Amino acid sequence: VLTDKVAVLGAGSWGTVIAGLLARAGRQKVFLWARSADLAEAIASQGRNPRYLPELSLPSSLTVTADLGEAVHEAGVIVGAVPTLWARGVLSATSAYASAGAVVVNLAKGIEPEGLLTMSQLAAQVLPGRPTAVLTGPNLAAEVASGLPAATVVACADEGLAGELQEMFSFPNLRVYTNDDVVGCEVAGAVKNVLALGAGMADGLGAGDNARAAIITRGLAELARLGVAMGGHPWTFSGLAGLGDIVLTCTSHRSRNRSVGFRLGQGCSVEEATAGMHEVAEGLTAAPCVVALAERHGTAAPICEQVASVVAGRCRPEEAVERLLQREPTHERAGLPVVGPVLEPVEPC
Amino acid sequence: VLTDKVAVLGAGSWGTVIAGLLARAGRQKVFLWARSADLAEAIASQGRNPRYLPELSLPSSLTVTADLGEAVHEAGVIVGAVPTLWARGVLSATSAYASAGAVVVNLAKGIEPEGLLTMSQLAAQVLPGRPTAVLTGPNLAAEVASGLPAATVVACADEGLAGELQEMFSFPNLRVYTNDDVVGCEVAGAVKNVLALGAGMADGLGAGDNARAAIITRGLAELARLGVAMGGHPWTFSGLAGLGDIVLTCTSHRSRNRSVGFRLGQGCSVEEATAGMHEVAEGLTAAPCVVALAERHGTAAPICEQVASVVAGRCRPEEAVERLLQREPTHERAGLPVVGPVLEPVEPC
Repeated sequence: VLTDKVAVLGAGSWGTVIAGLLARAGRQKVFLWARSADLAEAIASQGRNPRYLPELSLPSSLTVTADLGEAVHEAGVIVGAVPTLWARGVLSATSAYASAGAVVVNLAKGIEPEGLLTMSQLAAQVLPGRPTAVLTGPNLAAEVASGLPAATVVACADEGLAGELQEMFSFPNLRVYTNDDVVGCEVAGAVKNVLALGAGMADGLGAGDNARAAIITRGLAELARLGVAMGGHPWTFSGLAGLGDIVLTCTSHRSRNRSVGFRLGQGCSVEEATAGMHEVAEGLTAAPCVVALAERHGTAAPICEQVASVVAGRCRPEEAVERLLQREPTHERAGLPVVGPVLEPVEPC
Repeated sequence: VLTDKVAVLGAGSWGTVIAGLLARAGRQKVFLWARSADLAEAIASQGRNPRYLPELSLPSSLTVTADLGEAVHEAGVIVGAVPTLWARGVLSATSAYASAGAVVVNLAKGIEPEGLLTMSQLAAQVLPGRPTAVLTGPNLAAEVASGLPAATVVACADEGLAGELQEMFSFPNLRVYTNDDVVGCEVAGAVKNVLALGAGMADGLGAGDNARAAIITRGLAELARLGVAMGGHPWTFSGLAGLGDIVLTCTSHRSRNRSVGFRLGQGCSVEEATAGMHEVAEGLTAAPCVVALAERHGTAAPICEQVASVVAGRCRPEEAVERLLQREPTHERAGLPVVGPVLEPVEPC
């Protein structure tokens, strides 16, 4: 049972879109917290986010603030929309104000590098006792903002709560599916940004559409191996949070991580590739984290390893692609979890 | 144990590329059969396929013929590379010459409309007793021809034979994975062309990258439901033949089916959308077949149904997209086969 106040923490493009949609739907009182007082002031006075999403008009019912306590106090739902590098600091600061029963819904896609934690694992650590959920899928903020159709997933271990969140985040142009696999969805969100760097590199090298499709597909196999080892459900990775978001991020010209990868493929350094970017390319942070998690869980992650090597400056992109092609021929399902017999289908969709 | 002669039936772009690569590798004597005597003559005299792939030089060791008996006689491997609409006629005509132990490897991606059969089911009917296999994956012929890297799958129920075919079809820029799921790979190849029509329509309507990613992902769920009902392995659909080829065909500007869908989305009729195309867009034939198969097997296929409606002129693309968005909210795995517990992983890749 969600209360009538929602706090969205982080006024980047996606946090701004979600806060705007929630406020426009008018089902709850919505607070958008921006870390920068200047940005909060600008959003409040202009009715739009001049830094991250100037094209979207925000409803006047949205309250914008740089005061974390004001945003979070008595909120039934806390939506985390800050980059993973700042998430520990922001969520920790929230703990002084957060209600004991608040639901923490995460939007960021990555791994907290200090503890190699997913966002819900981090929330469980710094905001203990609160239920956690994740909203994730192939959702370019600018497209959702402009009213184009999209589908997404809300994952939560509690089925009833998942249904409530599904209702809360459903908007005329956003179709929400439920899923009970929080960790699977979160690992997917982290790995897809690393794969997008790899797909961008291949494109930047001019490796062709077949090569990109192979990176996406074999990258999904890497994700499935790691995600299942971390407790995720095999099907999650073929869903919107896995495949759907991998496809979007690896193919869209509007994807930040793909763009950075593209410039790396063209020979830029990481500094050159990210110059002038307003927002974070989470894949750069996630690449070494994903490799470390794969090592910890004993799963093969050859594409993420090569991406991490390029990001760290240990090899050139053309060497990375070359190495991926020269591996031993193998069976397509090698290393993938063996799934049991197919049982009866559940109700048709 | 394969003999030293291979017959490639069909001199379209992909058949021509595969015949050329096999001949250049020099491991077998390779015959390429063209239905048109004029085309066979032109390919033989020019050392290239002027109609379908003028940019690729073919090795002089390749024998090109319009005589089916000459091509097939004593061939240990018969590679079927004709469109599904002609496959029954060509394979039936082959039966007079084909060795009893010849392996039939199919390259076409679609369903034979007369009997709603996959290509290996058709081969089992008209060339009974021969082992069948399928070579399929995200492989744009022109890219493979130009030496760009790609990955693909050879599926065959006989593991030893799969390994031999893997070796036979491995080339420096083509990485081949084995799989034992023939029917799963074949259904994937048929459904992906229908989904590409749908993704193209959405792009033609300007629906955005999020919508395309949703069509790809939810289309994969449709494929998995149908493919498993037809006896395929769940993992196949997340592999190169399923996801990999769906992604390629739904996103590449070089995909024929996507291009036809794009023009349909812009308001063209099927006739207008296919005007001037040299090669067949298999999705147009496959759309009603996939819907019929889904009905027979009792699986939901909402995207393929909408595509089939547009192709048949029963509704406009914008109505089709609208209907897909307005369906009841659901769980992401609804109707997907319930997979059993995850057992121990097989050897890492």
